[in-house]
Amino acid sequence: MKATVLHAPGDIRVDELPDPAIVAPTDALVRITPACVCGSDLWPYRGINDVPEPARIGHEFVGLVEEVGTEVTTVRPGDFVVAPFMYSDNTCPHCRAGIQSACATGGFWGGTDRDGRRVDGGQGEYARVPLADGTLVATSEVPSDDLVPSLLALSDVMGTGWHAAVAAGVQRGDTVVVVGDGAVGLCGVLSAAQLGAGRIVAMSRHASRQAIARRFGATDVVAERGDDAVAAVTELTDGVGADAVLECVGTGEAMTTAIRVARPGATVGYVGVPHGVELPVRAMFSRNVGVAGGVAPVREYLPMLRDLVLAGDIDPGVVFDLEVPLAEVAEAYAAMDERRAIKSLIRT
Amino acid sequence: MKATVLHAPGDIRVDELPDPAIVAPTDALVRITPACVCGSDLWPYRGINDVPEPARIGHEFVGLVEEVGTEVTTVRPGDFVVAPFMYSDNTCPHCRAGIQSACATGGFWGGTDRDGRRVDGGQGEYARVPLADGTLVATSEVPSDDLVPSLLALSDVMGTGWHAAVAAGVQRGDTVVVVGDGAVGLCGVLSAAQLGAGRIVAMSRHASRQAIARRFGATDVVAERGDDAVAAVTELTDGVGADAVLECVGTGEAMTTAIRVARPGATVGYVGVPHGVELPVRAMFSRNVGVAGGVAPVREYLPMLRDLVLAGDIDPGVVFDLEVPLAEVAEAYAAMDERRAIKSLIRT
Repeated sequence: MKATVLHAPGDIRVDELPDPAIVAPTDALVRITPACVCGSDLWPYRGINDVPEPARIGHEFVGLVEEVGTEVTTVRPGDFVVAPFMYSDNTCPHCRAGIQSACATGGFWGGTDRDGRRVDGGQGEYARVPLADGTLVATSEVPSDDLVPSLLALSDVMGTGWHAAVAAGVQRGDTVVVVGDGAVGLCGVLSAAQLGAGRIVAMSRHASRQAIARRFGATDVVAERGDDAVAAVTELTDGVGADAVLECVGTGEAMTTAIRVARPGATVGYVGVPHGVELPVRAMFSRNVGVAGGVAPVREYLPMLRDLVLAGDIDPGVVFDLEVPLAEVAEAYAAMDERRAIKSLIRT
Repeated sequence: MKATVLHAPGDIRVDELPDPAIVAPTDALVRITPACVCGSDLWPYRGINDVPEPARIGHEFVGLVEEVGTEVTTVRPGDFVVAPFMYSDNTCPHCRAGIQSACATGGFWGGTDRDGRRVDGGQGEYARVPLADGTLVATSEVPSDDLVPSLLALSDVMGTGWHAAVAAGVQRGDTVVVVGDGAVGLCGVLSAAQLGAGRIVAMSRHASRQAIARRFGATDVVAERGDDAVAAVTELTDGVGADAVLECVGTGEAMTTAIRVARPGATVGYVGVPHGVELPVRAMFSRNVGVAGGVAPVREYLPMLRDLVLAGDIDPGVVFDLEVPLAEVAEAYAAMDERRAIKSLIRT
């Protein structure tokens, strides 16, 4: 099969790799259609994370089940399925507590499973899915093409934005600030709106992203950064600060801003993988600002979010503003790296 | 009046100071009976916090109202009152949100109020109480002597332990770990028990404190520290970790232990003033362990905790294991500093 391999920072290629096959009775074989590129794929692409050897990459896909192992009971050949960005058994204590991203037997696409077997990346023609029952979520019928991007968005960015909103404790009527206008931040806006936020302040300086934020429910946009952004939110909230804050970037500046705009007693829900973040514990303590979040347990939210998409209540797929065939995956990465695209969909 | 003054690290004295009087219409004048010493008083006493000049000290007291300003409506002369460790208006947005410790017009005992007037410390014969309606909580009648220590404990340690449990999100049936066997940690155990925790692991290596922890509801005691403590909790929880963790010390080691024993998705409720704490954001992120808490809004919890004490449901006053007259306040400090006493009560 053809699949994406990151050979070195900036050197992303489509290679010919062995076709995957069922190897464990809990596996499923999925034909990917389509996949996409994540903001976190850019960390190794940019060389911020090491790339010691060529690595399979990609962890967001939907597809059609081709074959299942003998122990798989919840998905069947022909089913349309959404894969979360991690696989999980969904039965261990951490999964049962709703933190499938800490699954005792789960792991990341592109790594190795607990039996030492290669796990496929998510940007290729096929993937062997370990622990298929605990990982995949099927729709009752194959969805129409127009719904596919929104279902694909559930594999990571929508579930991650939702996790930020849940971790931040968004309540009905709250004033919510969302730091970050990438796909996750925009999905955070959509999540806060679904949870009933009364006012949603999107921090964004890009017109196209501001437009999506407003479509998703943002009532205010703050284009400033740093001190000016804090001042703007302070003014918008009559000096009080936000009831809940979603930090959807992962940089030190974003986290600092997030904590500063939180009102005393509020929680910053953070889902951006921290790079250079130092938490200001004394300031957090003196103002009773908490931080919660982490690697999103997308599998936990997937059935509910699938139903919202199928009911037409949410349309997170609008974050895809570039679509390329697998052969042109390099452009999918370059466009996001250069911020020409919010999020790239890859036709496999 | 006689009142305690910290002249320099280790040099605590009872000085003759001017008698306080009502100066604002929202003031009350309270005859203190009795006061006590807080673990946080030891930071300047030990010279860990600077003592640039002699400073009034103490922030925990109960007493009898002697006189009130013309605008005070909720307490009257003769009332027995509990003072939280900060004064607050209880009407600003932060107070209304339950974070009176961030009150827009409130502040600390021993400092200066927003009009630049000296505010008395809490370890003396009298105190002028600013914003009396928003600060003091009265009992319907003067309580019997045996209840006074438990009501005094509400001025800080019990409300602070309660805040740790609330911030940690303790739910009925939870397995809760409490790091710290000082008065706050012990009150954290009591709070977790009141909130319905199913199992409470107290970390303590002192027999007298272990005994109080068990009296307050601890089901298990872990005497180890560091890696061994983490291993002990891991074994007690079948490898899963604690559902909620209360960090009631404020040192880096205590926070590290607290975060490590938390199960994925759990929150560390922290109320120890951070000294040398660095939050391990990457580890927190990868395991979805949050931190929440800070300066406890004791005023928020006081009416409810008062009722629990008066009903005989909680008896936090057992944390007082030393009682001295005001003239011997130096011994009250020394005994806590040398860990000969858990908490010292000062008869004024």
